[in-house]
This record gives sequence, C-alpha cells and structure tokens, in this order.
Amino acid sequence: MIRQEFFNLEIKTNGQKLYELTEKTDNWIKESNFNNGIINLSIQHTSASLIIQENADPDVQTDLISYFDKLVPMDNKLYIHTTEGKDDMPAHIKSALTNNQISLSIKESKLLLGTWQGIYLFEHRINQQNRIIVLHYLGD
Amino acid sequence: MIRQEFFNLEIKTNGQKLYELTEKTDNWIKESNFNNGIINLSIQHTSASLIIQENADPDVQTDLISYFDKLVPMDNKLYIHTTEGKDDMPAHIKSALTNNQISLSIKESKLLLGTWQGIYLFEHRINQQNRIIVLHYLGD
Amino acid sequence: MIRQEFFNLEIKTNGQKLYELTEKTDNWIKESNFNNGIINLSIQHTSASLIIQENADPDVQTDLISYFDKLVPMDNKLYIHTTEGKDDMPAHIKSALTNNQISLSIKESKLLLGTWQGIYLFEHRINQQNRIIVLHYLGD
Repeated sequence: MIRQEFFNLEIKTNGQKLYELTEKTDNWIKESNFNNGIINLSIQHTSASLIIQENADPDVQTDLISYFDKLVPMDNKLYIHTTEGKDDMPAHIKSALTNNQISLSIKESKLLLGTWQGIYLFEHRINQQNRIIVLHYLGD
Repeated sequence: MIRQEFFNLEIKTNGQKLYELTEKTDNWIKESNFNNGIINLSIQHTSASLIIQENADPDVQTDLISYFDKLVPMDNKLYIHTTEGKDDMPAHIKSALTNNQISLSIKESKLLLGTWQGIYLFEHRINQQNRIIVLHYLGD
Repeated sequence: MIRQEFFNLEIKTNGQKLYELTEKTDNWIKESNFNNGIINLSIQHTSASLIIQENADPDVQTDLISYFDKLVPMDNKLYIHTTEGKDDMPAHIKSALTNNQISLSIKESKLLLGTWQGIYLFEHRINQQNRIIVLHYLGD
C-alpha cells in the first residue's frame, strides 16, 4: 500500500533572511510515524524560495544573503515591474535562481540530510509575509 | 496499489520566452482522474529549462528574461564552446542556473500551486526548437 | 505494492570539475531490475551540487566551470565566512545557485534523459573530497 499525507507549514517572515524548517519537518515525520518515503516540499509563492544550506556557521547565511542582494540589485531603474516595490522583481529573480520545490528522502524514519545540511525558507521580500510551504509525504 | 502514468508534452518554441505549461498539465490530471500523487516534470534538453513563476503581471517575465540575458551574455569571446551559435553556451548556463526538473504535488485532483504560480518552459535558444517535457505521475 | 531501495554513491573528487554519475546510476537501475519509478538523488553536502548537463562537447563543462568561477569569485574580501578557505563560501553560493537534489523518472527500466543529457556531481571545492550522493528508488 502507498501512504500519502499532506501538511501546510505556515511561516511568518520579517525580512530577507533564512528561516530554518528542518526541525518542523522532522517533527512531522516523527509524529506521523513515516518509515521510508519522499517528502516533497513546495513553496506556494514566487518571491521566496527553498534551499538546503549549511546549518553550522551563521556567517554562511549572512554571506549568502548579501551575495544574492549584489547579484540581483534592488534598483527600480533595472526593471519594468516596479509597482509592488523595489524588492519584488529581485525577489522573483532570486526565486528563479534557487528552488520552489525540494524532494527529500526518508529512510527508517530519518531525513537523509548530511551532518551540516539544513532546510531553509529563503525570504526575498523586505516586509512581513505569511508563507505557506506544502509538505507532501508519499511512501509506505 | 501504486499508479504510474507517463505523458510527453511537446512544445514548439520560437525564441527566448516563457511558455506556460500549467493548463496542459492540469488537463492531463483531469483527463486521467489522478487523485493524490506527485508529477515529475523533466525537460529532455540542456538549453531550455523549467521554472515556477508569477502568472499575473507579464512584465515579470520580460524582466526575468532580460535579467538572465545580462547575467549570461551572448558574447562568443567569453566561451570556447561557440560552434553551435552565440546563444548555445549561455543557454547551457541558464539551464544550470534554473531547473531541468520539477516535482509537483497533487491533492484531491488539484495541483498544489499558489494563486499566482504558473509552470513555465524557459526557452534559452534564439531559433525555433521542438522541446519535449516528460510528465510522470506516481500516486494512487 | 510500492518498492523502495536506497544506495549510497561515493565519489572521490579532486578539484572543481564535473563528475559524471549517469553510468553508475544506470548500472544500479539494471542490477536492481527497477521497472517504473522515480530516483531521488540527494547530495549530502552544501559545497558541491548536482546538475543535468550536456554530455557531448567537453568544452561545455569547461565554460560552465569558468562561468561559475567568475560569477562567484574566490576573493576573501567579499565574504565574512573565510576560515575554511577562499573556495568554501563561493562553494556554498554555487550550491545554492544549482541543485542539492534531482528527481529522475524511470520508464520500463530506462532513465528518461534526453540524448545529450548526463547527470553530474559539480564539485566546488579545490582540495580532495569524499562525496556521498544518496540514490533512493520509489516505484513498482
């Protein structure tokens, strides 16, 4: 038999940062007694994204955010889609450069992540946002 | 029981644009009566890619295309792989910067996409191309 | 019935190059007699990544590597996370710009890749590394 479950993870964000989702995802796996399967995480927005990144040195996140800000400048002169704020079009581009969706493997109730890997919501907007990430389990 | 179905989506492209695949994907889901599962979309080429992007303001697509063109210039002096045209090596790079494959979740026969999200083929070549995207359903 | 199998692919790398995984993945599929399903490949590190790229002209790989090196310079003045070497922070950024995970479809025991597509580990570190990529099959 195939087992499937869905869960909406809601994250309130306040600014361009990484928000870790690893523990929340792990908790759902434990509470649900998943054994072997895939979890598909998909963010329901196009101005924030999902990435796997190092969870050890917080400087990595600071460098990552400032790199993306230089690569995709918040400068209205560069874009024609400017009505939603100087951060909106850069947010769409950063989303295209990263991921809207990540599939993770679960073996014997454990997420198969490396020692230094964490799952993150990467927020690209400046103002507060309510973000929804759908978690979908498909396995045994 | 696990159910699996495959479908080859063929798209004729004419130039560097986004080609929306959402409706075609939705139609396949409805005709096939899929309930809960995952659709894995994989493009069978390395000079075009797949992205999830905003489907509301068309200016977003224009800005996205021109951003990628500036980020990865069509300038033969920058590359050694130039025999297939000035747009070919930039196309491979743009493909690496976006996605060759996207997995989408389906719940109760509906694609779990946000209100403003659409699925797009992102064509990076200048001339007409015939593109194949494999849609693979795995679910109940 | 749903069938699931796991396999750890171990790759020793020596420098910033692409290491092809297509044949190793194919061999696992053949030895295991997989029929229809998905293989989820996930790299257990955040300073190397996974990409699908052209397997024909080796110049494409050379151009790709040098493009990413220009886009994300190994220059300690640009980053605060510098203790692990001048190539470490750029490696994390290149990983965020590409993929940590790829899902591939298998139909009738064949990977659904285009004629010119290969699966690659993209190593972003300079020194020798031991990399683990988890292959997870879910299908019939």
